[in-house]
Amino acid sequence: MSAPLASWNDTPTKTAIVDFVQRTTTEGSADYLAPNDRIAVFDNDGTLWTEQPAYNQLLFAIDRLKALAPDHPEWKDDPALGAILSGDMAAFGKTGMKGIFTLVAATHAGISTEDFGKIVRDWIATAKHPVYKRPYPATPFEPMLELLDYLRANGYITFIVSGGGVEFMRAFTQEAYGVPPQQVIGSTGKTEFKVVDGAPVLVKLPELDAINDGPGKPVGIDKFLGRRPVMAFGNSDGDLEMLQYTAAGDGARFMALVHHDDAEREAAYDKGSPIGALDKALTEANERGWTVISMKDDWNSIFPD
Amino acid sequence: MSAPLASWNDTPTKTAIVDFVQRTTTEGSADYLAPNDRIAVFDNDGTLWTEQPAYNQLLFAIDRLKALAPDHPEWKDDPALGAILSGDMAAFGKTGMKGIFTLVAATHAGISTEDFGKIVRDWIATAKHPVYKRPYPATPFEPMLELLDYLRANGYITFIVSGGGVEFMRAFTQEAYGVPPQQVIGSTGKTEFKVVDGAPVLVKLPELDAINDGPGKPVGIDKFLGRRPVMAFGNSDGDLEMLQYTAAGDGARFMALVHHDDAEREAAYDKGSPIGALDKALTEANERGWTVISMKDDWNSIFPD
Repeated sequence: MSAPLASWNDTPTKTAIVDFVQRTTTEGSADYLAPNDRIAVFDNDGTLWTEQPAYNQLLFAIDRLKALAPDHPEWKDDPALGAILSGDMAAFGKTGMKGIFTLVAATHAGISTEDFGKIVRDWIATAKHPVYKRPYPATPFEPMLELLDYLRANGYITFIVSGGGVEFMRAFTQEAYGVPPQQVIGSTGKTEFKVVDGAPVLVKLPELDAINDGPGKPVGIDKFLGRRPVMAFGNSDGDLEMLQYTAAGDGARFMALVHHDDAEREAAYDKGSPIGALDKALTEANERGWTVISMKDDWNSIFPD
Repeated sequence: MSAPLASWNDTPTKTAIVDFVQRTTTEGSADYLAPNDRIAVFDNDGTLWTEQPAYNQLLFAIDRLKALAPDHPEWKDDPALGAILSGDMAAFGKTGMKGIFTLVAATHAGISTEDFGKIVRDWIATAKHPVYKRPYPATPFEPMLELLDYLRANGYITFIVSGGGVEFMRAFTQEAYGVPPQQVIGSTGKTEFKVVDGAPVLVKLPELDAINDGPGKPVGIDKFLGRRPVMAFGNSDGDLEMLQYTAAGDGARFMALVHHDDAEREAAYDKGSPIGALDKALTEANERGWTVISMKDDWNSIFPD
């Protein structure tokens, strides 16, 4: 193993992280936290791995739609699905949230949660990211992988709290991030307990249960985790309420935003970006002294070798 | 610490548990499980602690209703709440599920999840069980506490999967069972992210989100845990689907029911009991060779000293 946080430059950001972890894990320190209270939450898209040019789950859904299309000739007449199948992503974009739901219902429902997990694992193992030309397990940010390891080595329990679908993420978070399925909080669809071919399974229904984004993130944290985190990492306005909720707890707290300001090595975007817009949360971070991680200045490496 | 499973007699039940744990944790064994796959789920009411003469959460709700009643003169005109306040539990019983929901809405909503947790902790610390005349933290079954410890000592991750309210249970599961909040799956109400007195909190709404009982148990397990357990312990027909779901996984599995057959030391009930009826699940356990734990024969002690 390399030194902890080897891909982080010796900037105030790294110092702030190390200082916080030392203060909260040194017995006798005023900020000491018992191991059970060391809870760190991480957004996924844009925080642990890239979300450009599109959410990876959307890229998965498009691949899956194309794979299933031969059995569904009716899809070409649907405004959203037809647009994707003919490669007209601008037309798909115009179908908005309704189009997204249609795509998710067509590609994420009607099968058991376990069969769905297998399909995601197969895709992750074989597909390549369209821009970075790497297999997906090699697209997480190396400094964030080191941060997860560093926190766990110091007794922190690491959770993912993402707007992504919970079953999609659970198919790869153990291997990619060392985060087991029960520490992944995401958007959920309804499921039904059903005996299929003699075996009881959970069947994914084409119906939303909870959207884990914006104010939905603290709702999800409270439902799954049952208490406030002490560290929270995000990168967009969809993470603002999660950071506010974390900040409002008693005792030492650490809130941070990953700022994508590295067009050369990954991407540069914040306010006004169609994906992962960072505007209000950046203003609030600056006002309240939360940590803003500059990919350009704070990280000496972006992707794993 | 006393010997593992000291309150368990040397019966085939204890042998079956020890044998299963040894087979699944000995490297090289055909049934070996990696630590991350060692997931054991436990029902709470009737499995880890007593559910007679009524669910402890119902006893809490009644105490809470009485404490709040002076500020709510209108409650005495409500069929369910008025019946409780006048001590007429038979009349309350006749109001059925509607009465239960009215009671839960009156006593479990309108405050933040954290304030609610404090109220439960205060109650748990001061109230006494009406039959066993013990503080609630002393009402769990000693053999089950030993079993939880024994499994964790062998690398198992222990989860509670109960029909009880998730916030009610999370207020005491760490202290009572050594199970942290994030390993408690229960029935949930809806919550709302809201800034109250300048601080963001989750406010409990008088609206159901999910009932974690019967087929709701595998649904909850899949949503929170993301995979099948390998060991499952219950005591009533409400646990049947959880045991079926566990049994249907690949590889070694262990399913067990706690059978309340000890009228002298705790209670004797199964089919036809108004609380914790055990009928279909007992038949299926006997047919399929699942373990049936006899409190009378398998346990030499019921409650902690």
